[in-house]
Amino acid sequence: MANNYLGIDDAEFIRGEVPMTKQEIRVLTLAKARIEENDIVWDIGAGTGSISVEAARQADKGKVCAIERNDDGVALIRRNAEKFGIENIETVSGEAPDALENLPAPDVVIIGGSGKRLETILDLISSKLKKGGRIVLNCITVQTLASCLSYMREHKKNYEYEAIQVQVNRLQTVGPYEMAKALNPIYIVTCVKIR
Amino acid sequence: MANNYLGIDDAEFIRGEVPMTKQEIRVLTLAKARIEENDIVWDIGAGTGSISVEAARQADKGKVCAIERNDDGVALIRRNAEKFGIENIETVSGEAPDALENLPAPDVVIIGGSGKRLETILDLISSKLKKGGRIVLNCITVQTLASCLSYMREHKKNYEYEAIQVQVNRLQTVGPYEMAKALNPIYIVTCVKIR
Amino acid sequence: MANNYLGIDDAEFIRGEVPMTKQEIRVLTLAKARIEENDIVWDIGAGTGSISVEAARQADKGKVCAIERNDDGVALIRRNAEKFGIENIETVSGEAPDALENLPAPDVVIIGGSGKRLETILDLISSKLKKGGRIVLNCITVQTLASCLSYMREHKKNYEYEAIQVQVNRLQTVGPYEMAKALNPIYIVTCVKIR
Amino acid sequence: MANNYLGIDDAEFIRGEVPMTKQEIRVLTLAKARIEENDIVWDIGAGTGSISVEAARQADKGKVCAIERNDDGVALIRRNAEKFGIENIETVSGEAPDALENLPAPDVVIIGGSGKRLETILDLISSKLKKGGRIVLNCITVQTLASCLSYMREHKKNYEYEAIQVQVNRLQTVGPYEMAKALNPIYIVTCVKIR
Repeated sequence: MANNYLGIDDAEFIRGEVPMTKQEIRVLTLAKARIEENDIVWDIGAGTGSISVEAARQADKGKVCAIERNDDGVALIRRNAEKFGIENIETVSGEAPDALENLPAPDVVIIGGSGKRLETILDLISSKLKKGGRIVLNCITVQTLASCLSYMREHKKNYEYEAIQVQVNRLQTVGPYEMAKALNPIYIVTCVKIR
Repeated sequence: MANNYLGIDDAEFIRGEVPMTKQEIRVLTLAKARIEENDIVWDIGAGTGSISVEAARQADKGKVCAIERNDDGVALIRRNAEKFGIENIETVSGEAPDALENLPAPDVVIIGGSGKRLETILDLISSKLKKGGRIVLNCITVQTLASCLSYMREHKKNYEYEAIQVQVNRLQTVGPYEMAKALNPIYIVTCVKIR
Repeated sequence: MANNYLGIDDAEFIRGEVPMTKQEIRVLTLAKARIEENDIVWDIGAGTGSISVEAARQADKGKVCAIERNDDGVALIRRNAEKFGIENIETVSGEAPDALENLPAPDVVIIGGSGKRLETILDLISSKLKKGGRIVLNCITVQTLASCLSYMREHKKNYEYEAIQVQVNRLQTVGPYEMAKALNPIYIVTCVKIR
Repeated sequence: MANNYLGIDDAEFIRGEVPMTKQEIRVLTLAKARIEENDIVWDIGAGTGSISVEAARQADKGKVCAIERNDDGVALIRRNAEKFGIENIETVSGEAPDALENLPAPDVVIIGGSGKRLETILDLISSKLKKGGRIVLNCITVQTLASCLSYMREHKKNYEYEAIQVQVNRLQTVGPYEMAKALNPIYIVTCVKIR
């Protein structure tokens, strides 16, 4: 398919009031996720659907389940899917882990938002995720990062993981100058199910 | 094609002594480059060929010209192309801008190393790059960044550009702890030829 | 003097609309400046006077000349000096380099704002700065950084220099979480006049 | 005292094999600590003694207790104190919290290393620290940061706190260029005992 690159500009998505993962973080998250064309992908806390849209283009013979508890978010995901001509996103209105119970077993799980129930969500995912499958978690809080690392340490028989912190500064043009405008840093934890 | 994701692990490339762009930077660089399947891509200062390999998988009906002045580098690029089964990389032994003269006109130019002749190189690229084409420059020095920004300001009738600085910290496991190991920050300048 | 620490909280300064150097940057700038008690300090582009106030407490037997072209800024500097009971700040209303001509020769020069005339300002400073004296420049733009580095390279018979980039993220409490709020990065260039 | 600035260069300290807090982090840590001239300061995990030396110059009518479990470290602290002519550092060979039991009640506690017993150490400190006193903790691991934040949340009747992450890149001169060399990021948590 032509024009199927990774890294759609932020401005191309319909956004509303819902916070959106920035392009650079979206690209790195999807690169860490290593989605293949037949994959089943869960996008938990899908927000505007920007990650779901890019994931769906990569899994173009598979499917993305976009789980979002906020109704405005669900509507936005549908509008963005439509805008980009994506037909393999299934929106799931509800909250993890309950909303995940009846979904098809995933090859890749992306977690953008987990509320306070990360451990329970990871337990549910672990029971469904295929061997060799990946969980990629974006964290903006110290506590979520620490919980995720703690979970992975306790389950190191089942998972290998790596974590990075990414900070992006955008250079803004102000008259004859460019000056850096900082974006908030984010942690990306990538977990591979080894057994 | 199965398994054609962006974001090959650093460890999968044959490396030698040549410095290699780190995975996260490679992924962001390629995302900014928006390579399409029929594109002609120039990879200037191709080093180990890690960017060329990933670019060649995206331009799978096009071609990547990997320009590298260092002979060990040229050999490495060939070995990496072979390892990943890539047949659409043409290695070009020599230095920009001279080595660029007889190459096919590019859709995308990635500059990983420019020596001291950035302005001359950008002039040559400008004469060949297709309208709508992209130049993505990775800079690790203040001087190269300033030169590139200065060039783009002087040629703003022909180019739109954006620049970011990216810093990645890898969390390393040390006993019961994870501690951040900083990678050097890098600037990525993305230029679109508008006329 | 009791309570004469470096690192007054941002909130303790009277601020108005004038942008203010953040505490962490102010502290590092002053540490790089190595002000001694009898020093004459120039604070060029003094803004709110937050750096002048802390410099004046260090040079408590010397003097700080706070140069500011904006009248609201000059008034703010005076109000902040008064608030902290500082009597050794002389405000200088005007623009560098002209406003510097008749000031006493400095031991330390801090440059927070230079407009577009950095090179001329550095020439003027060089003619007045004592041997062993220091210039500490805060840059937020790529172009000012590049100009300053270029000047120091051209005058390396007279100056040794080092430069750092500093990025601070403040952790903000949001319910049960802390999440990082990024401040814009800044460059600090420290130059020592060796001859 | 002349020449009593904050921010001694790293190279001026005797270092051995013991890891040393970098100058910029040392300066910010000490600024957050707001040491006054009569203060009693505990420096827990004092390492080379670089923080103790600078703290002792600020508390020049008070005292610094430099606690260090490693014998080579204790010897280094003494050598550095001697080098800088400091007489108000008391080295304490041993491990926190046990080694803290018989020390005079502190106004300021700086924690550079806490091993795995941070919570017990904070309990002991809390029983001794004066009202209005400060704890400044340098963390390089996610787990220590999370433990410290968790402790402060549980004791918010007694403490106010703030936390920052600081990342410093040093620009290195390489031929005609400067390129950034990243230092590892560090968290600094500042806690004020309010009751």
